[in-house]
Amino acid sequence: MAPAVPRSGDAIFANVERVNAELFTLTYGAIVRQLLTDLEEVEEVNKQLDQMGYNIGIRLIDEFLAKSNVTRCVDFRETAEVIAKVGFKMFLGVTASVTNWDSEGTSCSLILEDNPLVDFVELPDTCQGLYYCNILSGVVRGALEMVSMKTEVTWVRDMLRGDDAFELQVKLLKQVPEEYPYKDDE
Amino acid sequence: MAPAVPRSGDAIFANVERVNAELFTLTYGAIVRQLLTDLEEVEEVNKQLDQMGYNIGIRLIDEFLAKSNVTRCVDFRETAEVIAKVGFKMFLGVTASVTNWDSEGTSCSLILEDNPLVDFVELPDTCQGLYYCNILSGVVRGALEMVSMKTEVTWVRDMLRGDDAFELQVKLLKQVPEEYPYKDDE
Repeated sequence: MAPAVPRSGDAIFANVERVNAELFTLTYGAIVRQLLTDLEEVEEVNKQLDQMGYNIGIRLIDEFLAKSNVTRCVDFRETAEVIAKVGFKMFLGVTASVTNWDSEGTSCSLILEDNPLVDFVELPDTCQGLYYCNILSGVVRGALEMVSMKTEVTWVRDMLRGDDAFELQVKLLKQVPEEYPYKDDE
Repeated sequence: MAPAVPRSGDAIFANVERVNAELFTLTYGAIVRQLLTDLEEVEEVNKQLDQMGYNIGIRLIDEFLAKSNVTRCVDFRETAEVIAKVGFKMFLGVTASVTNWDSEGTSCSLILEDNPLVDFVELPDTCQGLYYCNILSGVVRGALEMVSMKTEVTWVRDMLRGDDAFELQVKLLKQVPEEYPYKDDE
């Protein structure tokens, strides 16, 4: 029997359909630029990127479950490891590390040292306050919500703001014991 | 000596960094939805997608020239073949065919039967008139402009409008004899 949780997303990533990372990076940059033009307020752009990510996450979880052979994770700790090692690899081609656990095992950080979203990106001074990669926090939040974990996902470190890595804090707010992977009424 | 023009982009595509195609498709869908919400007029969305594509194209040409080993194409015919067989493959992972040449060799069609941008996409009735893939026409136009070919790029067939393929007509308007690949003053 195959293990319930694959330890890495390498093999899965090698077998999914892919597009050129630079095309993706430039396309994402075009979205952010567009939102900055249309919405003007950086805070609104952050919200919108997060919401777009959320909408993507609630659909991407389908592909993840279909292709990854991941079945139910035993707890939030295992879920975080799967996101970091399998999820990020499967979609972005990079892995994250998981650290900074609180004592209850309900909050941790995903650390990304390599992030294809920000290749060639430099933020002008007018964009202080922008969380350029906020789509990612939304994707994680949306995907987890579809497997009955309500979370709060926030950036703690951001290389575009001068930090040495990208650190995404994921806090489990509520876990609904539920049939996996969907609620029928959603 | 290597041939001046590679005959396919398969090997190049295998060696560039890539991200999951579904992530790209959903991200692109999120842009289009966002533009429809913000701009309201479908015609404005078409223009904006084309402009975003143009901005991407004028940058993507760098990666194309760096990775593809394509040197100067002898004429527009060869250029069109390179876009179809190497460019589309290198960035989207699919190839196009080139057809419908006019007698002067200045206008042709690129036919895409497989198009990762439109996976899972269905247009609601309110989006009649939308050229969902208009970013692609912009990319082609922008990239060609950087190698001194001014073109007009328009959709002739669109599977989201019920046609049997995607057909992009590329008309060469003006070819500036120029140092390759950049003008210094741009």
